[in-house]
Amino acid sequence: MKRGGAGVPLVHSTPMPFDNYLGSKGADFEYFERLLEDAGSSLNAPAGVIVETTQGEGGLNPARVEWLQGLAELCKRHGLLLIVDDVQMGCGRTGPFFSFEIAGIEPDIVCLSKSISGYGLPMALTLFKPEHDLWGPGEHNGTFRGQCPSFITGTAALKHFWSDDTLERSTEVKSAKIQAGLEAIANQTPGTHVKGRGLALGLSFDEQAPLAEKAAAAAFERGLLVETAGHKDQVLKLMPALTITDDEIDEGLGIVTEAVRSVTR
Amino acid sequence: MKRGGAGVPLVHSTPMPFDNYLGSKGADFEYFERLLEDAGSSLNAPAGVIVETTQGEGGLNPARVEWLQGLAELCKRHGLLLIVDDVQMGCGRTGPFFSFEIAGIEPDIVCLSKSISGYGLPMALTLFKPEHDLWGPGEHNGTFRGQCPSFITGTAALKHFWSDDTLERSTEVKSAKIQAGLEAIANQTPGTHVKGRGLALGLSFDEQAPLAEKAAAAAFERGLLVETAGHKDQVLKLMPALTITDDEIDEGLGIVTEAVRSVTR
Amino acid sequence: MKRGGAGVPLVHSTPMPFDNYLGSKGADFEYFERLLEDAGSSLNAPAGVIVETTQGEGGLNPARVEWLQGLAELCKRHGLLLIVDDVQMGCGRTGPFFSFEIAGIEPDIVCLSKSISGYGLPMALTLFKPEHDLWGPGEHNGTFRGQCPSFITGTAALKHFWSDDTLERSTEVKSAKIQAGLEAIANQTPGTHVKGRGLALGLSFDEQAPLAEKAAAAAFERGLLVETAGHKDQVLKLMPALTITDDEIDEGLGIVTEAVRSVTR
Amino acid sequence: MKRGGAGVPLVHSTPMPFDNYLGSKGADFEYFERLLEDAGSSLNAPAGVIVETTQGEGGLNPARVEWLQGLAELCKRHGLLLIVDDVQMGCGRTGPFFSFEIAGIEPDIVCLSKSISGYGLPMALTLFKPEHDLWGPGEHNGTFRGQCPSFITGTAALKHFWSDDTLERSTEVKSAKIQAGLEAIANQTPGTHVKGRGLALGLSFDEQAPLAEKAAAAAFERGLLVETAGHKDQVLKLMPALTITDDEIDEGLGIVTEAVRSVTR
Repeated sequence: MKRGGAGVPLVHSTPMPFDNYLGSKGADFEYFERLLEDAGSSLNAPAGVIVETTQGEGGLNPARVEWLQGLAELCKRHGLLLIVDDVQMGCGRTGPFFSFEIAGIEPDIVCLSKSISGYGLPMALTLFKPEHDLWGPGEHNGTFRGQCPSFITGTAALKHFWSDDTLERSTEVKSAKIQAGLEAIANQTPGTHVKGRGLALGLSFDEQAPLAEKAAAAAFERGLLVETAGHKDQVLKLMPALTITDDEIDEGLGIVTEAVRSVTR
Repeated sequence: MKRGGAGVPLVHSTPMPFDNYLGSKGADFEYFERLLEDAGSSLNAPAGVIVETTQGEGGLNPARVEWLQGLAELCKRHGLLLIVDDVQMGCGRTGPFFSFEIAGIEPDIVCLSKSISGYGLPMALTLFKPEHDLWGPGEHNGTFRGQCPSFITGTAALKHFWSDDTLERSTEVKSAKIQAGLEAIANQTPGTHVKGRGLALGLSFDEQAPLAEKAAAAAFERGLLVETAGHKDQVLKLMPALTITDDEIDEGLGIVTEAVRSVTR
Repeated sequence: MKRGGAGVPLVHSTPMPFDNYLGSKGADFEYFERLLEDAGSSLNAPAGVIVETTQGEGGLNPARVEWLQGLAELCKRHGLLLIVDDVQMGCGRTGPFFSFEIAGIEPDIVCLSKSISGYGLPMALTLFKPEHDLWGPGEHNGTFRGQCPSFITGTAALKHFWSDDTLERSTEVKSAKIQAGLEAIANQTPGTHVKGRGLALGLSFDEQAPLAEKAAAAAFERGLLVETAGHKDQVLKLMPALTITDDEIDEGLGIVTEAVRSVTR
Repeated sequence: MKRGGAGVPLVHSTPMPFDNYLGSKGADFEYFERLLEDAGSSLNAPAGVIVETTQGEGGLNPARVEWLQGLAELCKRHGLLLIVDDVQMGCGRTGPFFSFEIAGIEPDIVCLSKSISGYGLPMALTLFKPEHDLWGPGEHNGTFRGQCPSFITGTAALKHFWSDDTLERSTEVKSAKIQAGLEAIANQTPGTHVKGRGLALGLSFDEQAPLAEKAAAAAFERGLLVETAGHKDQVLKLMPALTITDDEIDEGLGIVTEAVRSVTR
């Protein structure tokens, strides 16, 4: 539906398998690298690779550290720019400021948005290595170049939250707490399992996709707003504020537990 | 430069002559309509026409009322959607709220942005006739759907400025005052003439394009920020706040007069 | 219909007005050159211009010599390759071997096909100036590179027909004879006029387009095969073999005269 | 190189893995089918699949019967047209008239060319099921619609060679003979193996790709014309006339044996 909205064919990128896309832990670059090395593969030589380290809308699929490292090496080997879309998973969502820090990789370009303003104000940044800055002044933008209040709140947020590792540590602790809560639900709910990383966590209903939407509706009735994700909307997706308190987590997990129980009973 | 920034060919629209593009007052639709009627013209049947009633970045070129009416009729005749880009010229910039009101036409789609928030906050709207609303919910947008503060300031601005015709009348008066000031400069400056409509007015340096940039720099040194427009940046472009006072207009015109004199002397 | 057959948008070329396209003899390059010189015109900088010196399927529209010369100069001025599609009008169809010889211009690329084999065998050639030959061996072709019998008949035809100007002179004489015949028909048939050049001549039914198809059908019944051309198929199109005899011309014109009379009576 | 020759991005098809492309016999549709079933895969819903049953230029890679059957079923399941490019492998090259007969599948569209004229004359056919014939008359072609001599020789060839299964049987016998000869060479030449099907057979030099070109040159010196194929031109490719005699096969194999020996010694 989203792609059809463009009105013209969207044809300048080619999907490649994400980590574990084919259900195995093994050979996921095999296909991509084979195409790159095969002069007769009919793949146009790509300028770069764009990836989320944990797919958000795709259903909270975290890529393994070794897969991300493998991708970074593949890009280096073939002269492709590595672009990390950290719009949803950056700014501490998975723990560290950049979601890719766990892999020790250095993307050429990083897309940041949403939480980067620290206050819900509109803001987006594209970071890239100085050697890739070949733009003329204003070459690739429009007449909205940035909203001043966002710059101020964004700067304040960086100073307040990222001068030390307090937020990162706290996110890890809260993530573990929510994961435990979700695991408890999953244990009581056949055909579900826990997915995600950091404070982007979810409960996948796997083959019973419609239950995720029903659980989200049941949670909403109980005063909790949760989304779904995944290509069949099969994942109940929790993305609380990083500043959520332990009491709020307990309250939220309580509602999610009840909501899931109410639709699977 | 802007088009090159896309990295892929921008090929899904075809430029057609704007009013007076070819220097004559006559036959500007002749070409467009000929192409539409000629089954062998190689023009892909267009879905719609997008137009600014006064070209902003294009150099403050106002389309005549009869040209706009002619375009609206042509669109009706050929089943094309008429889309007015009122991002720069809407929200009272040329007098009435919508820039196309002077022609009594009814576009199918209107693009609004910038001033629509009333307060410099990020906001953009696409208005279209209900019969064209064939989108599914959220079909053609991303995850930023609107910033709440902009909705509030936008609503306040609409109520405050557009409950009656006070602002529109005031804009007309201020426009006449600035036009008179610019005409005085033009009279003293061979090779220049005044362009624009409402409070989007400018002084075109015609064949001496570089003087516009120089005059803008000279005004900046004197404390006034002015832009240039046109494909050769040949137009010194004044777009004051609609709430500018008469004293501020006098002060601004004084600086522009001096700035132009300093670069043309 | 032809364009729709591709299945994908055909968007990498932009139509520009042919000579006399807008009904006037004057300013037809005005628009094209204005777009080329206007950095804000939204026309992608073209690599070249492709033109028929007399439009065949377009309805036998001959470009004036001065228009062709103007186009060649425009191409030189803006660094565009001039490509003449001489598939239908080359190989002597309009008199000289190349249809553009009458304008004394030198295209960068010439497309030849059809009559070039001299014998109805499949053959096509793309001639270009040596300085434009940047292809690697076999870079832009498939696995059919040329049919040997066509090379032989093509060479024989060049030798036989183009060692001197006999054929060219004969074509001029025959063209005058057929034009006279068509003028006689046009004089007796209100709302028609004669079009074309050399031995690509036709009778245009102007506002009564359907009569052309009817006349073609009436000629077919009488044993003569004629086509129609033009975006409304409004032109009865005569393209006899260059080797047609005077008697055959008389016979053909007799049939055309009767056929037109039968549908316009 | 071939793709670059187009001058515009070739973006309306996406490569998918051929049989055994990833070196395993297992899961080759897994990726394609996963993309088709995944609404979030970013693969534009394809209209059809185009495949060679044995890749010719790709290096004489025969698809297994069960892979072709799986592909046909996948197409049926997802409403995709199955298009077999039988230009090189059709007309008996692999034994039966259509190369896909061995799999008992029924493509929606079949591309035929080259040998279909039976005599080296230019000819190409696109066969499709009547229910797919939605074209208007002449909608998707140009002004060359077919050369009469090719129709005559093509018809004669069909009658002469395909009234019974003599040619098919003979091709099988000759194929076995040539395979045996190539196997003998491969056994004496470490790092090579035999590839292909029917009378499209080759010797792959695997990791020592340049030897294939050298062997081809050595064969040429000895009076035998052989091509190479594969993305690194690593396959010495034999495509004799289907009417080759046993003596000619012996002579040809003798030359190939010597040629290979001369470059690998």
